[in-house]
Amino acid sequence: MKVGVLCIGDELLKGAVINTNLAYMGQRLLEIGIMPELCLEVPDEPHDVVQALEYALQHADFIITSGGLGPTADDLTKQSIADYLHMPLELDPAAEKAVRDRWNSLKRGALPLNFLNQAYIPHGAKALLNSFGSAPGIYITTPASKRIVMLPGPPSELHPMFDNQLLPILKEQLDTRIYTRLFHISGVPESRVEERTIPIIQANPGLSVAYCAAPEFVKLFLKTTDPDCLAKAEKMVRAEFAPELLHDSSHTVAEEVILLLKERSAALALAESCTGGLIAKLMTDVPGSSEVFFGGVVSYANSAKQHLLGVSAGTLEKHGAVSAECAAEMLQGAAEQFGVPCAISVTGIAGPDGGTPEKPVGLVYIGVKCFDQVLVKEYRFRGSRAQVRERTAAVSLNTLRRMLLGEHLS
Amino acid sequence: MKVGVLCIGDELLKGAVINTNLAYMGQRLLEIGIMPELCLEVPDEPHDVVQALEYALQHADFIITSGGLGPTADDLTKQSIADYLHMPLELDPAAEKAVRDRWNSLKRGALPLNFLNQAYIPHGAKALLNSFGSAPGIYITTPASKRIVMLPGPPSELHPMFDNQLLPILKEQLDTRIYTRLFHISGVPESRVEERTIPIIQANPGLSVAYCAAPEFVKLFLKTTDPDCLAKAEKMVRAEFAPELLHDSSHTVAEEVILLLKERSAALALAESCTGGLIAKLMTDVPGSSEVFFGGVVSYANSAKQHLLGVSAGTLEKHGAVSAECAAEMLQGAAEQFGVPCAISVTGIAGPDGGTPEKPVGLVYIGVKCFDQVLVKEYRFRGSRAQVRERTAAVSLNTLRRMLLGEHLS
Repeated sequence: MKVGVLCIGDELLKGAVINTNLAYMGQRLLEIGIMPELCLEVPDEPHDVVQALEYALQHADFIITSGGLGPTADDLTKQSIADYLHMPLELDPAAEKAVRDRWNSLKRGALPLNFLNQAYIPHGAKALLNSFGSAPGIYITTPASKRIVMLPGPPSELHPMFDNQLLPILKEQLDTRIYTRLFHISGVPESRVEERTIPIIQANPGLSVAYCAAPEFVKLFLKTTDPDCLAKAEKMVRAEFAPELLHDSSHTVAEEVILLLKERSAALALAESCTGGLIAKLMTDVPGSSEVFFGGVVSYANSAKQHLLGVSAGTLEKHGAVSAECAAEMLQGAAEQFGVPCAISVTGIAGPDGGTPEKPVGLVYIGVKCFDQVLVKEYRFRGSRAQVRERTAAVSLNTLRRMLLGEHLS
Repeated sequence: MKVGVLCIGDELLKGAVINTNLAYMGQRLLEIGIMPELCLEVPDEPHDVVQALEYALQHADFIITSGGLGPTADDLTKQSIADYLHMPLELDPAAEKAVRDRWNSLKRGALPLNFLNQAYIPHGAKALLNSFGSAPGIYITTPASKRIVMLPGPPSELHPMFDNQLLPILKEQLDTRIYTRLFHISGVPESRVEERTIPIIQANPGLSVAYCAAPEFVKLFLKTTDPDCLAKAEKMVRAEFAPELLHDSSHTVAEEVILLLKERSAALALAESCTGGLIAKLMTDVPGSSEVFFGGVVSYANSAKQHLLGVSAGTLEKHGAVSAECAAEMLQGAAEQFGVPCAISVTGIAGPDGGTPEKPVGLVYIGVKCFDQVLVKEYRFRGSRAQVRERTAAVSLNTLRRMLLGEHLS
């Protein structure tokens, strides 16, 4: 089965909204061995929607659309596709009840006329229940036995509908499976990952390999139609990259750190200056992190460094806030204040302003404490403010990960 | 001029990478009045790349591609497009020098053969300098006078190349301009924004309007080919939504809060429990935030709430950490510890676990202090862990924004 994705909305093409729906659907499809053949983003224009649908139908037999199902005047997906397929819209009683119930639960007065438009479904199509929003999804089988499923655009509505309603439909229709595996390899540049993967590719005809470098790690994808080939290749990857592989359950280095902290019954605290809460945010993105993550101080102002972390006035005066000495005292302060054996401190200049010839933008000091091991290092990161902050967070967490694995770093 | 975008990479379709390049390019194009006609994401397969290019060329006369220019075996964009256009690849001396210099600056030993592939450019095309990576961009004029610009996929390379090299090329070729304006309207539901915009649409024939609801605000887009129509419509929007409009320079509520704090010469501190650093991260995403943002405490553990924020043991015992009483003490603690007139505190249950019948997932207490005004309110947010955290952050910052504007809330 070939899947095509169609994401509808001016906001995607104007950059007002990042298309996270494609990434979400891609991840969920991959879990059942499907990679979409293509995705198209098109404006809220019937002509564009229909042209893109025609193109997608040439390359796929199961089309998923997102967006354009809501009550406003720019929501044109349903009407456009129904017109194209000559399926008149009809009021669906179950959908009408759901839409009315939804409106009543919002307690906003009388039902506006346009709101009820959402309950009209193409003749012969099936409405898919939306428990987190007002617009039902729509499931169509075309005269040529192709399938079209329309889902609403807001991720909070699309995710549960994708999981609970679309995935079961897809699984029913699978013919040949693609077997895939994703590895997260930490601390190895992409080109080295590729070199070290060559023998694995050569030993496994039919195996397809892709790489993707992220700030935290290189992602290595294996893909094949042969499950035995995948098993053999997987074994070889695990042997080759043993010390550098994250656990399969970890999708971020923060998740890996939390897992390792739990294994060692240790807890972590943070003292963040230039990352300004980013590392804490990454840690607390992970459900259950509270078991091993006690908290942190975002010490943006120098007074906070002194008052909340015990950095000495002398250190700030003599070495400045962006210094190895300050990072060391912040590290000590965080561990003491939160009473934990593991801590990370960061202080640096994220930019774009605030750099000097001696202390340029990108200069960052990272302190990491893991039980008795304490390391404070200087880094010079390149890139934008966001990149300097991301890289600082990635290096901090990766350093702690390696220490938690028992490496002795210097 | 019609622009089409082609983003190449299995990782986009597998959801391993979110396509932020489209959003970036969309925003930058909008600033010169262009909305792309369409975007396609396709796998790293020559056949798919060429088919998508053909489709894009049917709908646009200026194609921008991203991805697939690197040194690894899955980087096939350049070769695929060169083959399709019958333009043999040739070693470009300037590109070769840049690629060699880049490799040498990385200090990783002898130049690998595949790395030099990046210096081969289609005959007749122009190489575009890449100051932040190794793969040059490529600028092609086709025999049918269409333009194709290929850019590398990593955002850190694409962004500066887009701004410094592609934008000047695009501006040269503009014929009819589209005039656009984007407004951020805070605290009004999307359907109300639409209703209140109807008179503006009716008064301005030729004006096209789109809406987009984000957690923080509704984005309202105006588009027209007539600059006078845009000016008139803009005036009407400003009158209609005066109290709810963010400043034009603010792209986030955090930016708006920072602007208002600067206007009032006030500073802010945070005490975050369930948001775990997210609000601090949003504040410090903004360059120059250090002037008015002094820092925060991420008090994930109860001991941190007591020790660093002065929450009393009695409050935690009697009311629990997720309570209005705890939020009030956290708020007071943050303001005192950092010595600031404005503070935000949040404590709640972000989920997916940790909820009880009395205190379900989504229950959040938000405290906001703005000089003498102090407000602690209970919220029940729906959605995933990430959504509960996002909404908590959005509501917190918006509440402070309104207080800073002088509203008296209860």
